[in-house]
Amino acid sequence: MQKSIEVCLTPALLNLYDIENSIVVVIDILRATSSIVYGIDNGAEAIIPVSQVEECLDYAGKGYLLAAERNGAVVEGYDFGNSPFSYVAEKVKGKKIVLTTTNGTKALHMASSRAHQVVVGSFLNLSALCSWLKIQDRNVLLLCSGWKDNFNLEDTLFAGAVVSELHQDFDLFDDSCVAAEDLYAMAKADLRAYLHKSSHSHRLAQLNIEEDVKFCLQLNLCQTIPVLDGKQLIALKT
Amino acid sequence: MQKSIEVCLTPALLNLYDIENSIVVVIDILRATSSIVYGIDNGAEAIIPVSQVEECLDYAGKGYLLAAERNGAVVEGYDFGNSPFSYVAEKVKGKKIVLTTTNGTKALHMASSRAHQVVVGSFLNLSALCSWLKIQDRNVLLLCSGWKDNFNLEDTLFAGAVVSELHQDFDLFDDSCVAAEDLYAMAKADLRAYLHKSSHSHRLAQLNIEEDVKFCLQLNLCQTIPVLDGKQLIALKT
Repeated sequence: MQKSIEVCLTPALLNLYDIENSIVVVIDILRATSSIVYGIDNGAEAIIPVSQVEECLDYAGKGYLLAAERNGAVVEGYDFGNSPFSYVAEKVKGKKIVLTTTNGTKALHMASSRAHQVVVGSFLNLSALCSWLKIQDRNVLLLCSGWKDNFNLEDTLFAGAVVSELHQDFDLFDDSCVAAEDLYAMAKADLRAYLHKSSHSHRLAQLNIEEDVKFCLQLNLCQTIPVLDGKQLIALKT
Repeated sequence: MQKSIEVCLTPALLNLYDIENSIVVVIDILRATSSIVYGIDNGAEAIIPVSQVEECLDYAGKGYLLAAERNGAVVEGYDFGNSPFSYVAEKVKGKKIVLTTTNGTKALHMASSRAHQVVVGSFLNLSALCSWLKIQDRNVLLLCSGWKDNFNLEDTLFAGAVVSELHQDFDLFDDSCVAAEDLYAMAKADLRAYLHKSSHSHRLAQLNIEEDVKFCLQLNLCQTIPVLDGKQLIALKT
């Protein structure tokens, strides 16, 4: 088959895409999907994305770790938010985590209701993800979680990194792919410096998460591809 | 005041922007807003954008020129579509034109219901538009008409050209501005060559409108800024 790859710049545009037979890669670089990849790679048994902060509470007292982030900060009273440093092996190995975030978990749910398969991408597992996508006989949609339904730079740059790695193995590209790939080409020499242009970067700077940002921009620290299996994200068996 | 400039990448995202006190620049480079600028510049008295092909017919037999385009082609039975070569002085001087197009007229209507003021931009009137925007004490939203509610390259490149010209005169920029400006910087040396990457370009190539595309990518052929006055676009008095 002729394989297509497309970039959906925000979840608000997802209804424009036919994804019933596609693999959807959900992207929320700062920080949900980076932390999910890192957590699963560090041995978390499963991460369960839920839409509402209140839904996390349904899992309280049942042996789950509860993680909730809103507007970039840990919700008061929760075990942690979506800083990748909370997802180290000492904290998450063998655990199940329930997670809600501003943008990433919403995108995961929107994709899961229609897509053939939903996986999670971040710079941390870029190569592993691309190697796997190359050998699937499926179209691919890269779904940027964005910021409150709008475009953001960091998710688009990661989509561009994927397009760049897959360019030779796919036949059809949309305009968003072209833009994402070219922006990544412009930014890749120093992703952190490039993101200083971003409105989200300013917003995050106020939260003192510079170390998180640097961490999330590292390439290929992890080999794991989280995949949605029913309601939970687990390690894909490749 | 601190002036902000933002880029709305598709009309499907317009509801995310607060535009009640802003000037909205509607952009549909291939070809609606290029032709509107050219037509008004060539002395058309007014251009009335309508949403539906059928609405054009309400104006039939009343001295209006009727223009209708769908999916890039002139609708059968209409005087013309949205090729700029139909909007030369010999055809449009002193005339009123009723126009419906796939994307541009929809964006015009969406903006007009909420914005402080709606003007029309294209490469043809880039400098005139930017000179005027600089001296307005208003925030600016650059609204890309896109293709059927999704992102397209040519409208984004034009938004980037505007951001580039206005960078020193505005204080706040969103992530879409950064992306658009950088894509324009990459493309501006040869816009036509860059757009060969675009899916829309392939679509348009099938319609044999290469001459139209080249025409629409010319800079500063016109001095006129079309502005929405009630239901019709007329020349802004600057």
